[in-house]
Amino acid sequence: MKYGVVAFPSKKLQDLANAYRKRYDPHYAQITPHLTVKGVFEANDQEIEEVAKAIKEVTKKHTPFELNVSKVGTFAPITNTIYFKATLNDELAALHKDLNNDFFGEKPEFAFVPHVTIAQKLSSGEHDDIIGQLKMIGVDHTETIDRLHLTYQLEDGSWTVYETFRLDEDN
Amino acid sequence: MKYGVVAFPSKKLQDLANAYRKRYDPHYAQITPHLTVKGVFEANDQEIEEVAKAIKEVTKKHTPFELNVSKVGTFAPITNTIYFKATLNDELAALHKDLNNDFFGEKPEFAFVPHVTIAQKLSSGEHDDIIGQLKMIGVDHTETIDRLHLTYQLEDGSWTVYETFRLDEDN
Repeated sequence: MKYGVVAFPSKKLQDLANAYRKRYDPHYAQITPHLTVKGVFEANDQEIEEVAKAIKEVTKKHTPFELNVSKVGTFAPITNTIYFKATLNDELAALHKDLNNDFFGEKPEFAFVPHVTIAQKLSSGEHDDIIGQLKMIGVDHTETIDRLHLTYQLEDGSWTVYETFRLDEDN
Repeated sequence: MKYGVVAFPSKKLQDLANAYRKRYDPHYAQITPHLTVKGVFEANDQEIEEVAKAIKEVTKKHTPFELNVSKVGTFAPITNTIYFKATLNDELAALHKDLNNDFFGEKPEFAFVPHVTIAQKLSSGEHDDIIGQLKMIGVDHTETIDRLHLTYQLEDGSWTVYETFRLDEDN
């Protein structure tokens, strides 16, 4: 089964992201807006119990982090994905490190660019048409993220939450 | 903000429900297949923290319950909703009672008929066309539910998980 670890931002930021996703993201209906902290990995039913325990141990040791999105970015020309770029502060970097280095699943191929996707799978033409405008409109939002969610994917591509982990001592 | 408390069944049962929902449920994309334990209620940001604590207290006192779905039912003629009917065993009945009687939110208007919706908002014609066949195909699945999820609704109608509660002592 496919799993991933994400943070769901507040309703306010999710609604804002969805206003774009509705038009520009074919994965719009598969999961609500999120920031991925650990990308897709495979685990079976036995393994995931161990992984969930390990995630709990990690999240226990971390504190809530500030999610600050202040600009629109793009992964083009690698992929035509447009996103709200989140500031990579120390807390978030440490949390990502603990869930990806020497942890279950493969080590990420790319550097960690924390973000909330607002558009993807665009043609180059579509991407180039809207990126300027989206960058100009921009985004400016700060909130505290105090929990992560372990999610799994159904056959139709949609994601269900398996478990929530609070970022604090008593978890 | 609108909240609700649900149980998400295993991937197996969710995939089965989605095979029908894809065709017959316009809410298909808003939430993955679920069994509602506490229907929609309103709460503000302060209230929900208290409610979450209270749900935690309730779920701590309950143990995992058996989810057994063995027939297809319909709420027609009240609404043209078709569902996998879950057996109302003592554990599930007690859990529902503790989250709905003398608890935050209004007392439910109807008796508790635990179910996983597979079709809704059908016209009477559509409903009558498919109910016989769906009943004949039937369903037969049993699993253990060991957690509930507190969810909230975004402006576009989709639902995000706010928190997970394990049905066991150490929660």
